[in-house]
Amino acid sequence: MDSTMQDVPLTIGQIFRHGQSVFGSSEVLTYAGDHTRRATFTEVAGRVARLARGLRRLGVREGDRVGTFCWNHQEHLEAYLAIPSMGAVVHTLNIRLFPEQLAYIVRHGGDKVVLFDASLTGLLARVREALDGVDHLVAIGDGDTSALGEVLAYEELLAGEEPSYDWPLVDERDAAAMCYTSGTTGDPKGVVYSHRSTVLHSMAVTSANGLGLGQLDRVLPIVPMFHVNAWGVPYAAWMSGADILMPQRFLQAAPLAAMFAEHRPTLAAGVPTIWNDLLHFAEDNDVDLSSARALVAGGAAVPRALIAGYKDRFGIPLTQGWGMTETSPLCALAIPPRNSAPDDEIDYRSRTGRVIAGVEVRVVGADGNVLANDGASVGEFEVRGPWITGSYFGQEDQGRFHDGWLRTGDVGTLDGLGFMQITDRTKDVIKSGGEWISSVELENAIVAHPSVLEAAVIGVPDPKWDERPLACVVVRDDTDADVGALSAFLESKVARWWLPEQWAVVKEIPKTSVGKADKKVLRSLYAKGELDVDVVDRG
Amino acid sequence: MDSTMQDVPLTIGQIFRHGQSVFGSSEVLTYAGDHTRRATFTEVAGRVARLARGLRRLGVREGDRVGTFCWNHQEHLEAYLAIPSMGAVVHTLNIRLFPEQLAYIVRHGGDKVVLFDASLTGLLARVREALDGVDHLVAIGDGDTSALGEVLAYEELLAGEEPSYDWPLVDERDAAAMCYTSGTTGDPKGVVYSHRSTVLHSMAVTSANGLGLGQLDRVLPIVPMFHVNAWGVPYAAWMSGADILMPQRFLQAAPLAAMFAEHRPTLAAGVPTIWNDLLHFAEDNDVDLSSARALVAGGAAVPRALIAGYKDRFGIPLTQGWGMTETSPLCALAIPPRNSAPDDEIDYRSRTGRVIAGVEVRVVGADGNVLANDGASVGEFEVRGPWITGSYFGQEDQGRFHDGWLRTGDVGTLDGLGFMQITDRTKDVIKSGGEWISSVELENAIVAHPSVLEAAVIGVPDPKWDERPLACVVVRDDTDADVGALSAFLESKVARWWLPEQWAVVKEIPKTSVGKADKKVLRSLYAKGELDVDVVDRG
Repeated sequence: MDSTMQDVPLTIGQIFRHGQSVFGSSEVLTYAGDHTRRATFTEVAGRVARLARGLRRLGVREGDRVGTFCWNHQEHLEAYLAIPSMGAVVHTLNIRLFPEQLAYIVRHGGDKVVLFDASLTGLLARVREALDGVDHLVAIGDGDTSALGEVLAYEELLAGEEPSYDWPLVDERDAAAMCYTSGTTGDPKGVVYSHRSTVLHSMAVTSANGLGLGQLDRVLPIVPMFHVNAWGVPYAAWMSGADILMPQRFLQAAPLAAMFAEHRPTLAAGVPTIWNDLLHFAEDNDVDLSSARALVAGGAAVPRALIAGYKDRFGIPLTQGWGMTETSPLCALAIPPRNSAPDDEIDYRSRTGRVIAGVEVRVVGADGNVLANDGASVGEFEVRGPWITGSYFGQEDQGRFHDGWLRTGDVGTLDGLGFMQITDRTKDVIKSGGEWISSVELENAIVAHPSVLEAAVIGVPDPKWDERPLACVVVRDDTDADVGALSAFLESKVARWWLPEQWAVVKEIPKTSVGKADKKVLRSLYAKGELDVDVVDRG
Repeated sequence: MDSTMQDVPLTIGQIFRHGQSVFGSSEVLTYAGDHTRRATFTEVAGRVARLARGLRRLGVREGDRVGTFCWNHQEHLEAYLAIPSMGAVVHTLNIRLFPEQLAYIVRHGGDKVVLFDASLTGLLARVREALDGVDHLVAIGDGDTSALGEVLAYEELLAGEEPSYDWPLVDERDAAAMCYTSGTTGDPKGVVYSHRSTVLHSMAVTSANGLGLGQLDRVLPIVPMFHVNAWGVPYAAWMSGADILMPQRFLQAAPLAAMFAEHRPTLAAGVPTIWNDLLHFAEDNDVDLSSARALVAGGAAVPRALIAGYKDRFGIPLTQGWGMTETSPLCALAIPPRNSAPDDEIDYRSRTGRVIAGVEVRVVGADGNVLANDGASVGEFEVRGPWITGSYFGQEDQGRFHDGWLRTGDVGTLDGLGFMQITDRTKDVIKSGGEWISSVELENAIVAHPSVLEAAVIGVPDPKWDERPLACVVVRDDTDADVGALSAFLESKVARWWLPEQWAVVKEIPKTSVGKADKKVLRSLYAKGELDVDVVDRG
């Protein structure tokens, strides 16, 4: 049976028109160190129309990709609104990528025009060859852009255009924006957001169980707009009439503290490193965060001490969120459940997050079966929903999808209240007899032994169990390293079937450039027989 | 260009599963006067599955309509969740309709099964003939149902069924629920909500600029679930984990005060009459509303004095909402904009409402042209959006649609902040020379004259202007009624072209059964030449 409802698509144009017609007096503030530029939504909306006209004049048509290579500022927001509203696709380029990744993305995305910050000319010039396929480069702001050859000026593109545009009707499933993941292995993978996914994600961000973004807020997206759409904050803020405070390149503790003091944001979002820096800065400096009702952290696990630090020092909740480029990104937020004891607050906030409405999360075991949401069964998280990707742009799916669900590569548990707890990455777990052994938990248990300085556990092939753990340990100089004793020590700490049979005492654990254990090297050493392996017989 | 997003439909099943898997410890409370029944979402979810199995056993298939004839209680919520989730359509029957309307609706909707409160047997028995086409009647609760012949018991329907169901995949545009408008003229008109419209509306209700419903709330829907889905509160509450406090038939001030005192809802929604009663009750009784962060009123214009009364007496905002059966209903909420002066709060709250994201509202003049959102241009409100109806179920559109927009029949202004102000119904405005004259404003201006007791203004045919106003007035016995003087009095009060040329002094204004001016009678008297009309020549 059909409904009688109107068939009105969910589009970014609709978000744009709502902010324009209802929240014209809300503001976009762009912090510039010694001053702050301000513009009302009405003023921004006029410039959005002029930008669309200018891009149209440059030949941008529906479905064309327009790249941005920018910090967070008003013009970047204008691009976010104009490009999808005119039926084109805004492609945010991550300014922090290696040149070869950036070149790949510009080419693979097929960008027709690239808007860039003149101040970032040097970074963009490193991929000048990849820009040969781009018809027009448009520079925002002042700076020497000569290294990029012929360049248009953003303000000249807008000058002389009328502040109105005959916005086209678009299908809600059409592409609106795209973003590439920047994994450390293989080519970057493109995710293409639709108008529909963006509207639904924005609604989720504005929900009370989400970030609760509304017309009384002033939000500071510290997370870059080239990083998963700044977690959806720009669109959600425009839709809900929240002021947006843009930090540009001023992401250090001192200017952030100045922004909080002067512009009093009610909400701010950034990676844990930023919040850690600001907390340390506050040890020796006056920092006033009293305007903030919450701070949001994501992009990496948020340390418990950091959450406790913000509570103790400022009385402000630091809310951990979880998501990925593939998930728009908001999937889960670690907000304590109703009726939880005050003493449990930090515990709940330290978890990965509680699944938000619109997203379905499940835990899948090594054998592909869905496990119970019991807070104990460990498996890979799989995610499903209207703002979750179902493929990659112009690339094979690389085994990342399972019955229409996205395989996240994260391993952990889901409890009966919808709280996720990530414990591992799939590449770091050992698949043994159809079950998973956490290398992270084994390592934590092993280093608890007083003789052990460092430990790294890898999975090695096993004819019967598929894989078994091999523990590589660095022991103190003054101890008599007895792997039998270490194994016995572990027996009370982990499940018996987790106990490694194979141990290797090594001089040091090889490290990656960022100081993490380089397990690829250990696996390679093992494969070549270059590890001195002891076998512990547990009888 | 296509997006890479998953094609996951928006369904009530998704709402159901989210509440079940994430908010299992939230509660549904059903107030029963001397006690309150409580059930967790987990318990309710099990019963929802059992209800779906029971209905399936009775022969309910996808697309079938299942009627409900119930107060607000846990079982009604179970029906709300089970029926659409199994692919059928929940059809809420308004227990307050006249028997002929109710009979029409049951027949026109084609209900296959009707769930009803045993306590409402008498009301339902008045349309017993219309129930001949219904396969099964299912009684909820205790009471003598013998007047309805063979009846199944709800608890027996559930008994013995497993608390799980293999929920089908449904298309998001499929029918999920239906509700008939109960206008005073013509047959009731059916509106069929889709899964998509219900999910989007629920997300809007949970948004910060909406009702902000979230997991920390306990919501009291006083507005009946047979009245436009209790304004969407049940689905939004289940989706967001808010406790739901169901008042059943206890809608009087005393039991409502008891519910507030005992169960401490954070939010409650009802018509202005209810809030007026409660405010008066509080004059002579202890009433503790301190648990509430806001009260929501809708269904009729909310008097300014009522809003001020709640602010003065309780310090609680009474938030006026606007919508219709045709609009799911939430379209606008009268929440003061950011940075508004405290003195302006009651002014803003007294307006009809501010348009919420997802809904587009425009003002259209008598000539069909869209007018400016300037707070001054008067026209009919037209509404567009994914939760607005685009037709009526199995009926002609009755001139209610215009280029895909719903014509609301309400007349007023829209300002630059998205605030609507309704001043008239279209049937009460006079179309003169392509513009509209408000009969309400004219009447208010006329009765301000000390000689006038009552006034009613109607539009009468005019060869040049299409329509012109005719003012019918009742004057005080002791005054010398001079329509020339009345006309002169009006000149400083309304636009010159609004001034009625024709006046009729009458003994009384004919009234409808609810005491409103019966303009149909006046128009008929005029057409028959039975009004004694004076013509004022303004030269």
